Amino acid sequence: MATQEDKNLRLKRSKSLNQADDFRKCEEIVRQLQPDKPCHKYQDSLFSWSSGFNDFNGFVNWAFVLLMMGGIRLLLENLLKYGIRIDPNVWLLLLFGGNGKEHNAALLLLTFVSYSYYMIRKLKFGFISDGIVPIFLSLFIEKAMAKRIFSENIGFAIQIINITYVIILPMILITTYSKRFGLLGATTVCMTYSIIFLKLWSYIQVNMWCRKQRNEKLLHKMKESVSFSNCLHKEKSSNNKGVNEVNLHLVIYPDNLNIQDIVYFMFIPTLCYELNFPRTDRIRKRFIVKRILELIIGVHVLAALFQQWIIPSVKHSLIPFTNMDILKSIERMLKLSIPNHLLWLVMFYLLFHSWLNFIGEIFHFADRNFYLDWWNATNSNVFWRKWNTVVHRWALRHVYLPMVDIGYSKFVASTAVFFISAFFHEFLVSVPLGIFRSWAFVGMMLQIPLSSVSMYMEKHYGPRLGNVTVWLSLILGQPLCIMMYYHDYVISHYGKALIEQFGHL
Amino acid sequence: MATQEDKNLRLKRSKSLNQADDFRKCEEIVRQLQPDKPCHKYQDSLFSWSSGFNDFNGFVNWAFVLLMMGGIRLLLENLLKYGIRIDPNVWLLLLFGGNGKEHNAALLLLTFVSYSYYMIRKLKFGFISDGIVPIFLSLFIEKAMAKRIFSENIGFAIQIINITYVIILPMILITTYSKRFGLLGATTVCMTYSIIFLKLWSYIQVNMWCRKQRNEKLLHKMKESVSFSNCLHKEKSSNNKGVNEVNLHLVIYPDNLNIQDIVYFMFIPTLCYELNFPRTDRIRKRFIVKRILELIIGVHVLAALFQQWIIPSVKHSLIPFTNMDILKSIERMLKLSIPNHLLWLVMFYLLFHSWLNFIGEIFHFADRNFYLDWWNATNSNVFWRKWNTVVHRWALRHVYLPMVDIGYSKFVASTAVFFISAFFHEFLVSVPLGIFRSWAFVGMMLQIPLSSVSMYMEKHYGPRLGNVTVWLSLILGQPLCIMMYYHDYVISHYGKALIEQFGHL
Repeated sequence: MATQEDKNLRLKRSKSLNQADDFRKCEEIVRQLQPDKPCHKYQDSLFSWSSGFNDFNGFVNWAFVLLMMGGIRLLLENLLKYGIRIDPNVWLLLLFGGNGKEHNAALLLLTFVSYSYYMIRKLKFGFISDGIVPIFLSLFIEKAMAKRIFSENIGFAIQIINITYVIILPMILITTYSKRFGLLGATTVCMTYSIIFLKLWSYIQVNMWCRKQRNEKLLHKMKESVSFSNCLHKEKSSNNKGVNEVNLHLVIYPDNLNIQDIVYFMFIPTLCYELNFPRTDRIRKRFIVKRILELIIGVHVLAALFQQWIIPSVKHSLIPFTNMDILKSIERMLKLSIPNHLLWLVMFYLLFHSWLNFIGEIFHFADRNFYLDWWNATNSNVFWRKWNTVVHRWALRHVYLPMVDIGYSKFVASTAVFFISAFFHEFLVSVPLGIFRSWAFVGMMLQIPLSSVSMYMEKHYGPRLGNVTVWLSLILGQPLCIMMYYHDYVISHYGKALIEQFGHL
Repeated sequence: MATQEDKNLRLKRSKSLNQADDFRKCEEIVRQLQPDKPCHKYQDSLFSWSSGFNDFNGFVNWAFVLLMMGGIRLLLENLLKYGIRIDPNVWLLLLFGGNGKEHNAALLLLTFVSYSYYMIRKLKFGFISDGIVPIFLSLFIEKAMAKRIFSENIGFAIQIINITYVIILPMILITTYSKRFGLLGATTVCMTYSIIFLKLWSYIQVNMWCRKQRNEKLLHKMKESVSFSNCLHKEKSSNNKGVNEVNLHLVIYPDNLNIQDIVYFMFIPTLCYELNFPRTDRIRKRFIVKRILELIIGVHVLAALFQQWIIPSVKHSLIPFTNMDILKSIERMLKLSIPNHLLWLVMFYLLFHSWLNFIGEIFHFADRNFYLDWWNATNSNVFWRKWNTVVHRWALRHVYLPMVDIGYSKFVASTAVFFISAFFHEFLVSVPLGIFRSWAFVGMMLQIPLSSVSMYMEKHYGPRLGNVTVWLSLILGQPLCIMMYYHDYVISHYGKALIEQFGHL
């Protein structure tokens, strides 16, 4: 009964609404016919929810315009305050060190042989302490293990000692003869030795996998695969030598254990060893020229940005930072974060696009997946997976998956990956600076709680805010670490007295 | 023959390509079966054109994050440099003037009657020089013309004198008694009188249209429209009084010529008069409360922004601006443009959304089209059509279309619109400041070449760059005008000596 009454009521209401609608329409028609040229009608403002309007794309352009203007203003302010500070002489000083022995780092990097010679003659080093020795030693041990001269256990122990030596060598060398390497030179040396370490780790592990497989049922598998490829090429093989070529092209363990192979692996832009890398057919000359131009221009932009913008900003932040003047420190940090972030972006492009593509093109290396779209990452886990796929691929293949296979939990395995990453970040900063703090290490390990925070943001506030969290951690986290290291560097090199003296000015 | 050969060649080539493809596939299958867990494949980097990748949405968030950080830094820098400058006493001073007679502008705006009384008593003005007189005079003349007491020509002449008086009155009053009005009070008075002027113009013109129509075939048309509405409501009219209501609701000339009608028109948020405005059925209380809250908070934010950010910025820009120190002037201008632009955005929202919607809701005015999506404007013509539809509608209906109807070209008509707009911009700035330069006028007239530039940008470089041009003209044009006026204001009030003295500091 009640529902029937309800229905009647609704019917009445909708009727009266219809009537009101008709009435309004009729009124509107008559109104429009009047001679006063009516120009108003029923409508909401666009900012009212009821208008249903949501096209605010123009504000994206607005943001970029304001950003560009802010950048130009900061540039002008900087020029007016400090004048032009760019001085190429300082670049050479940073790269090669400043006490007359300008060629240490350059020689160390460019020619292994002359470097070794130099080390023996000038530094009176008793043995050839070169990066090239562990590489060939590694090959030699692998050959011996393939031929079953060494047992698995003994060979593995020697390999571990061998790669540990690779990572300890620059520590000792640079700490002992710190004045002979510039800051930038020392960083590049550390970087090179880190890369050799990671590559040898991969080389040793892959060869181990191959030996295991060989001991089991390698021959059976290989036969199968060849017959499979035979079946693919059944008709054509009668005309050309497709299958034979396949068999000729693909290297099978232990044929890979030769000098040419390991040297090629050392030069190509990947940390993961495999027996048959995908190769391009030809070298594109235009591509190479573009990458070289990007590198030349980019490096100069980097150096100029650094001298003109970062150094004064860092210097001016030191006093408020030491005095723990929080508001002023935050202001300085925010001011430092913009040029620092720009520098990082340029560096990313130069290193991961221009440089690695250049190297890849020269060595016919076909896999150019050096980075993915980290700028769209909605949480920091995705960011770490995407921003440096070269290292991420290595960590996945040689640390994470082997650990999970052994039986460790996923959390333990990913913590181990972050631990190794944190170690190398610390290594690449502390050794060249000559001060052993743990800010970079702590910063990397903080990524584990940060990933929870950004995943929480993504889950509860949508992917946009997750992405914003990732950007904020990038833009703000780095200058904080830089300030901490610079602060400690100044204190350990010039003493607290200097800062106190500055504080009075 | 040649084509046949070509075809054969192509066929051969594609065959060899297919074979190469098959070969590569086969090679890949065998490679994947090897025990070295291959992880590389043929692929390009995302930044290479050949990758076809173009999802850079994350950089939109990046821009907003950097913008927000830059804003917070500027706020902090400002606080550290100047401390807290917000002082509500100054607000009252700006609004009401400073020599003990604090109520001039408030009374002038809030109560017409007490203002008139005040003017007679305090300023010893011989006659009631009120905004209210021209309004009622206008109504009186229209009534006389409707009753054919005045001829069209005489009535029109009187009306022109009447509305000219409306615009000259505040010029004389404010210039003569400049110390009795604060700067903000004087601006608001000028704004009010400008609005009365534009409304009366519309009122006079619409009534003229109605009289013309009446003289021709008004009665015939009205009969038609009523019979049309009759036909719509044929069935319902037997039950209720739909049609009668329509006829009762719609006002027909000259029934509109009464005090209630003209006073309602003066209060509602539109400049275009018509006989039957669309009206809402009820006043939404929540809507009103929201708009009031926005206004209260917004006005305080505006005042605080102005005192804390704009005033120091303008003061610091004066010296480089006077000395024609170009680089420094540009830097100052860019620094000023950000807070100025933010102020303008907040002001836009408060005036065009909060205030006009509030007034509209109170007076049951249903047409809330006060602005359109100007932020998406791809050239400055579109911007001027969209950002202030209240004035644009007036200019279109009462200047542009009548001029085009008479036979002027579209360019002349739109130039006339810009000319009137330029006059009012100048009027609203020069009269309160008490200095008659032509920067605002020139700025508005420069919109004509600017519109060509932005349309060129849109046509040749796409809508995005057109939109960027519009934003740049907005963000950079305004602070330039402000600096010019401030500079001239200081010079005319304090003399060049002051600036030279500052210059030595």
